[in-house]
Amino acid sequence: MDYNKPTVVAASMIQAGVDKINLSAGDLLVRGLLSGAILGFGTTLALTATAQTGLAIVGAALFPACFIIVVLMGLELVTGSFAVLPMAYFDKKIGFWAMLKNLSLVFVGNLLGGLLYACLFCVSVSQFGHEEKNAVAQLIVKIAEAKTVGYAQYGLDGMFSAFTKGVLCNWMVTTGVVLGMSSNSSTGKILAAWLPIFIFFGQGFEHAVVNMFVIPAGIILGADVSVADWWLFNQLPVTFGNLLGGVVFTAWALYYTFGRNKRTETRINNP
Amino acid sequence: MDYNKPTVVAASMIQAGVDKINLSAGDLLVRGLLSGAILGFGTTLALTATAQTGLAIVGAALFPACFIIVVLMGLELVTGSFAVLPMAYFDKKIGFWAMLKNLSLVFVGNLLGGLLYACLFCVSVSQFGHEEKNAVAQLIVKIAEAKTVGYAQYGLDGMFSAFTKGVLCNWMVTTGVVLGMSSNSSTGKILAAWLPIFIFFGQGFEHAVVNMFVIPAGIILGADVSVADWWLFNQLPVTFGNLLGGVVFTAWALYYTFGRNKRTETRINNP
Amino acid sequence: MDYNKPTVVAASMIQAGVDKINLSAGDLLVRGLLSGAILGFGTTLALTATAQTGLAIVGAALFPACFIIVVLMGLELVTGSFAVLPMAYFDKKIGFWAMLKNLSLVFVGNLLGGLLYACLFCVSVSQFGHEEKNAVAQLIVKIAEAKTVGYAQYGLDGMFSAFTKGVLCNWMVTTGVVLGMSSNSSTGKILAAWLPIFIFFGQGFEHAVVNMFVIPAGIILGADVSVADWWLFNQLPVTFGNLLGGVVFTAWALYYTFGRNKRTETRINNP
Amino acid sequence: MDYNKPTVVAASMIQAGVDKINLSAGDLLVRGLLSGAILGFGTTLALTATAQTGLAIVGAALFPACFIIVVLMGLELVTGSFAVLPMAYFDKKIGFWAMLKNLSLVFVGNLLGGLLYACLFCVSVSQFGHEEKNAVAQLIVKIAEAKTVGYAQYGLDGMFSAFTKGVLCNWMVTTGVVLGMSSNSSTGKILAAWLPIFIFFGQGFEHAVVNMFVIPAGIILGADVSVADWWLFNQLPVTFGNLLGGVVFTAWALYYTFGRNKRTETRINNP
Amino acid sequence: MDYNKPTVVAASMIQAGVDKINLSAGDLLVRGLLSGAILGFGTTLALTATAQTGLAIVGAALFPACFIIVVLMGLELVTGSFAVLPMAYFDKKIGFWAMLKNLSLVFVGNLLGGLLYACLFCVSVSQFGHEEKNAVAQLIVKIAEAKTVGYAQYGLDGMFSAFTKGVLCNWMVTTGVVLGMSSNSSTGKILAAWLPIFIFFGQGFEHAVVNMFVIPAGIILGADVSVADWWLFNQLPVTFGNLLGGVVFTAWALYYTFGRNKRTETRINNP
Repeated sequence: MDYNKPTVVAASMIQAGVDKINLSAGDLLVRGLLSGAILGFGTTLALTATAQTGLAIVGAALFPACFIIVVLMGLELVTGSFAVLPMAYFDKKIGFWAMLKNLSLVFVGNLLGGLLYACLFCVSVSQFGHEEKNAVAQLIVKIAEAKTVGYAQYGLDGMFSAFTKGVLCNWMVTTGVVLGMSSNSSTGKILAAWLPIFIFFGQGFEHAVVNMFVIPAGIILGADVSVADWWLFNQLPVTFGNLLGGVVFTAWALYYTFGRNKRTETRINNP
Repeated sequence: MDYNKPTVVAASMIQAGVDKINLSAGDLLVRGLLSGAILGFGTTLALTATAQTGLAIVGAALFPACFIIVVLMGLELVTGSFAVLPMAYFDKKIGFWAMLKNLSLVFVGNLLGGLLYACLFCVSVSQFGHEEKNAVAQLIVKIAEAKTVGYAQYGLDGMFSAFTKGVLCNWMVTTGVVLGMSSNSSTGKILAAWLPIFIFFGQGFEHAVVNMFVIPAGIILGADVSVADWWLFNQLPVTFGNLLGGVVFTAWALYYTFGRNKRTETRINNP
Repeated sequence: MDYNKPTVVAASMIQAGVDKINLSAGDLLVRGLLSGAILGFGTTLALTATAQTGLAIVGAALFPACFIIVVLMGLELVTGSFAVLPMAYFDKKIGFWAMLKNLSLVFVGNLLGGLLYACLFCVSVSQFGHEEKNAVAQLIVKIAEAKTVGYAQYGLDGMFSAFTKGVLCNWMVTTGVVLGMSSNSSTGKILAAWLPIFIFFGQGFEHAVVNMFVIPAGIILGADVSVADWWLFNQLPVTFGNLLGGVVFTAWALYYTFGRNKRTETRINNP
Repeated sequence: MDYNKPTVVAASMIQAGVDKINLSAGDLLVRGLLSGAILGFGTTLALTATAQTGLAIVGAALFPACFIIVVLMGLELVTGSFAVLPMAYFDKKIGFWAMLKNLSLVFVGNLLGGLLYACLFCVSVSQFGHEEKNAVAQLIVKIAEAKTVGYAQYGLDGMFSAFTKGVLCNWMVTTGVVLGMSSNSSTGKILAAWLPIFIFFGQGFEHAVVNMFVIPAGIILGADVSVADWWLFNQLPVTFGNLLGGVVFTAWALYYTFGRNKRTETRINNP
Repeated sequence: MDYNKPTVVAASMIQAGVDKINLSAGDLLVRGLLSGAILGFGTTLALTATAQTGLAIVGAALFPACFIIVVLMGLELVTGSFAVLPMAYFDKKIGFWAMLKNLSLVFVGNLLGGLLYACLFCVSVSQFGHEEKNAVAQLIVKIAEAKTVGYAQYGLDGMFSAFTKGVLCNWMVTTGVVLGMSSNSSTGKILAAWLPIFIFFGQGFEHAVVNMFVIPAGIILGADVSVADWWLFNQLPVTFGNLLGGVVFTAWALYYTFGRNKRTETRINNP
C-alpha cells in the first residue's frame, strides 16, 4: 500500500522523533547544514523565476522543490522538527531536554547552511563583486529589508505580525512533513508535500530557515539591515511563531485525534 | 491493485460513513477545525494567484491543493460527509439522528476553523492593521460582497441562484471524495480528486466551508456585509444546496447503481 | 504489472462489452445521466478557461478532466460504447439487438444528463435570469450557432463536414477508452486517457455527448438555433460519425490485430 | 520493480525485434496505418497550439502525446523499428531480408495512415472546401513548403541538411522507444518517452512519419510543392537520416554497451 | 517499496562506484559520448524555449529532460561520477588511480559527445551554412562569450567566480544523482531528479559537460572565443569546481552521515 492512513502517519512521526533523538551532534549539524543550504538554493531559484516573470506565484510554485529534496534525502530541518519531536514528547517517548538540545543543534546546522550558501551565492551573483546587482540580487535586498525593518517600523505590532506569519507558515510546513510521510513512494511524497509548501511561500508567510539565508544574503548584498534588526524583528519572533504553529496545529492536533490510542481505523480517507 | 472499481468505492464509502459515526465529538471538532482552516489557506493561495495573474482560472487550478491535504490527512469536511453519511444511511448502517449530530459537529468544527484562519490571515495580510488593503484583501472584500449582497438584490431568486450553485458545487466536491477513494496510492488520490474540485472552483460554484472563511474574512477587512446577509443569502441556501447535491447526485446515484447489491463486477473501467 | 499489453486490453474491452449488456435499464440511465452531466461540467470549465485566457488550447487542456472522471467512476458514455460493444459483437459474445438497445438507453441517459446540466448551469450563470450574459454564456451561444447553422449554410456538405469531424473525434475518444484500460493504476489511467481527449477537443472535432449539453444550453441562453437545426445538422451526423469512428478505427482495427486470436505476445511495447 | 535497468531494456528490444518479425503483413499494415494517422492527429494538435499561442515550444510540448499513444497501444512506427529491428539483427536473431520486408510494410502502413488523416483533416479544417484556410491550415502550407522547397533551394547541401536533421530526430525518437521500455508502468512510460520526443519536435528536426502527413496535407491545402519535391528533398533524405540515427546511436551503441553479453549489472542507475 | 531511505541510497552509490570501475574503456567512452551529446540536445531545447519565450526560467524548466534521459539509460556523466566514485573510494572499495582513470575516460567521452552534437547541430541550425544565424544560434554565441571572455575580463577573480558557480552547480547535479537513486520507479526517478537540475540551470551555475557542447558550438557559430579562453577561464575552473562540489557536499557529507556505518534507520523520512 502506497498511501498511509493518518493513524499510521502519526505513529511514524512519533518513531521519527525517537530516531532523531538518537542522532549524534555531528549528524544533526551535517544534515542541518545541508538543509539550510538547500533551502537557500530553492529560494534563489524562486526569486529568479519571480524576477523574470514578474509573478511571485511562479516563484512560489517552484520553491517546494528544495523542501522536497530535504524530505527525500532525510535531512534535518528545525521547522519540521518543531512538529515531529513534540509528538514523540507528548507520547512520552523522549525527554524535554533531549528535545531542546536536538532542536538547538539542528537550528545551528540550518543557520550555518544558510550562511554558507549566502556567501557562495553572493560570489556567484556578483562575479565576485565585479558586477552590479542583477534583478535577483536587488529582489533579495528588498525582501531582506521588508522582512526586518518592514516589521520594525510597527514595533511590537510588527513583531506580532511576524510571529503570526510564522505560525501560519509552519502550520503548512509541518503539514508538508506529515504529507511527506503519508506516502511510501517518492512520487507520492513529492506531490503531497509540494502542496502546503507552495501555500505558505505563495503568501509570504515567514519561515525561520529560509530567513537564515535570505536576510544575511540581503545584508551582504547591501540591504540596510542590522544583525539586531534581523534577529529581533524576524528571526526570533518567526522562530517562536514557527514553533507554536508546529506544536499546536500539527503535533498536538494530530496527536490528539490520530496518535493517542493508535486506533487502527479501517477507512482509506474520509473528508 | 491501485485503482478501485466503483463497486469497491461504494462499499468503502458506506464503511467510511460507519467509521465517522464512531468518532468522538472532540475528534470531529478537531478534524473539522483543521479542515476549515486548511480550506481557508487554499482559498487565499488561489486568490493570491488570481490577483497576480488577473486570471481566476489560475487560482482555481491551485485551489484543489487544500482539498487534497484534507483528503490525505483524513480530516472531516461537512460537504464531503453530505455524501458519505447518507450512503451509510441508505444502506441502513447508521441512524438518522446520529448522522445529523455528526454533520452538525463537523459543520461547527469547519466554521471554527474558517473563523480562526480568517483572524490569523487578516493580522498577516494587514501587518496587524498597519497597512492598506493589498490586492488579495481587496479581492476578498469584493468576493464577500458578491457572495451575499450580490444575491440579496434579487431576493428569493438570488437565494435560489445561490442554492443552485451549491448543488452544482457539491456534486463535484463529493465526486472528489469518491475519486479520492478510487485509488489506493497518494498520487492517484491527488490527481483524481484534483479534477472535480478544479471544476467547481473555476466556475464560481458555492461551497459552504470555503464561505465560512471568505465571507467573515471579507467582513473583518471591511466588506459591507452583515452577518444576516452572510447566513440568509449565502450560508444557509448554499449549505442546503450542497446537501442536496451530495445526497442526490452522489450518495443516492452511486448507491443505486454501484452500492445496493455490492455486485462484484469484473470490468476495470467502462465508459 | 501496472501496464496492460494491447492483447490484454482487447480482451478487457470484449469482457467490458459483455458486462455492459448485463446492466439493467436503470443502471444504464443513471450512469448515462451522470456522464452526460459531468461532460457538461467539463465543457463549461473549458469554456471558462478559454474565455479568460483567449486561448482555446488552454480550455482544451482542461476538458479531459471530465472524461477522466467518467472513466474512473465507471459510468456509461455512448461514444465509448461505440467501440466497446462492437468488439464484443465482433467476438460473437453479444447480440446485435442487445447492443442496439444498450446503446439507445445510454444515448438517452447521456441526453438527459446534458439537458439537466444545461438547465442548472443556465440558472447559475445568469443569476436565475437577472444578469446579462457573461463571457462564458456568450461563448456557448456562439459555439451552439457555429455547430448548427454554421454547417446548415453548406447543406449536405455541411452535414458531411460534421460527420467527418465526428469520425475524427470518436477515433480519439475511443482511443481514450482503450488507454484508460491500458493501465491498472489511477494515475496511469488519468495520464493516458487525457492525451487523445485533449487532441480531439483542441481541434474542435465533434462529440455527440458534449453537444447534448452545449447546443441546448446555447438555445436556452438565446442562440438562434432551432431544435431541427440541432438534430439535423449536428446531433444526427455527429452521432453517426462518432459511431463510424469508433467501430472502424478502434473496434475493428484493434479486434483485427490484437483481439482475434488473443495471442499472448511477450513484448512490453513496440512502436 | 517498475524501472528496468538498461541491460534489461536492451534484451527487451532484441525480443521485441523478434516479435515484430513474426507479425503478419496485415498486422503490420493495420498497426502502421493507425500509427501514421495518430502522428497526424498529434501534429495538428501541436500546430493548433502553436498557431494560437505564437510559441512553437508549446506545440512541441504537446506533440509527444501522439507518440505516447502509439507506444501504449503497441502500434508500429517505422522510425522506432529502425532501432528495434537492427538490435535483433546485430544479435543474429533475425535475418536481413526479413528485417527489410518488415520495415517496408510498416513504412507503407505509416504512409497510408498519414495520407488518410491528411484527407479527413483537410475536409474538417475547410468545412469540405467551403471556408478559407484558417491559421492552422496556413501553418501547414508554410511548413510543407519549408520542409521541401526550403531545402531544394540549396540543392545537395539542402538534402544533406535534411538528412542531418533526420539523424538528430531519430536519435531522440529511438531514445523515446528505449525509455518507453525502461518502465513497466504506464505512468513511467508516458513521462520517460515524452522527454526525447519533445526535444526533437521542439527544434524542428525531421521525422519521416510526421512528414508523411504534413507534406501531403500541405499539398492538398495549396502548398506550392510537387510530389518530386516531397520525396527527393525530404522523404528520402529524412528517411535515410532517421535510419542512420536509429541504427548507429541507439541500436549499435546500446547493443555495444548493454546488449552484447547481457551482463546482469547490479546498479540501479549510474550517471 | 518505491522510496529508498538515505542509508540505502548511500549504499547503492558505493556499489555503483564499484560497478563503474569494472566497466571497460569502450563502455565508458560510448556511454560518455552518448551522455555528452544528450546534454547538448537538452541544452538546445532549453535555449529554443528561452529564445521563444524570452524567459530563461522556461528553458531551465525543460533542461532536466536530458539529465533524466542519461539517468534512466544508465549512461556515464563525469559530473555525477564526481560524487559516486569518491563515495566508493571513501569506503575503501576502489583505488585512487582506478578512480582517476575512470573519471578521465568519462570526461573524454563526454567531450567527444559534446563536440559531435555541436557539429551536427550547427549543420542543422544553419542549413549547412546557407542561412543566417537564427535566435537560438545567436543565443549560443552570446552564452559562449559570457562563459569565457565574460570571466576573463576579471582575471583570477573571474576564474574564482566560475569555480564557485561550478561548486554550486555540481552540489545540485550530484544531488540529482542521489535523488535518482532514491526511487525504484521511473516516475519517482524522473520527478525527484528533475528538481535539483532545474535549480542549477535556472540560476546559470556552471556545468562542465554542458559547456563541452555550448562553448565549442558557440565558437563554430562565430563567437569571439579562443580555445584557450574556453579551457582556461571555463572548462578547467568549472571542472575543478564541479569536482569540489561533488566530493565535499555530496560524497563526503552523505558518506559521513548516511554511509559510514550503514545504519538501518527505521524512519521513512525525517526533515
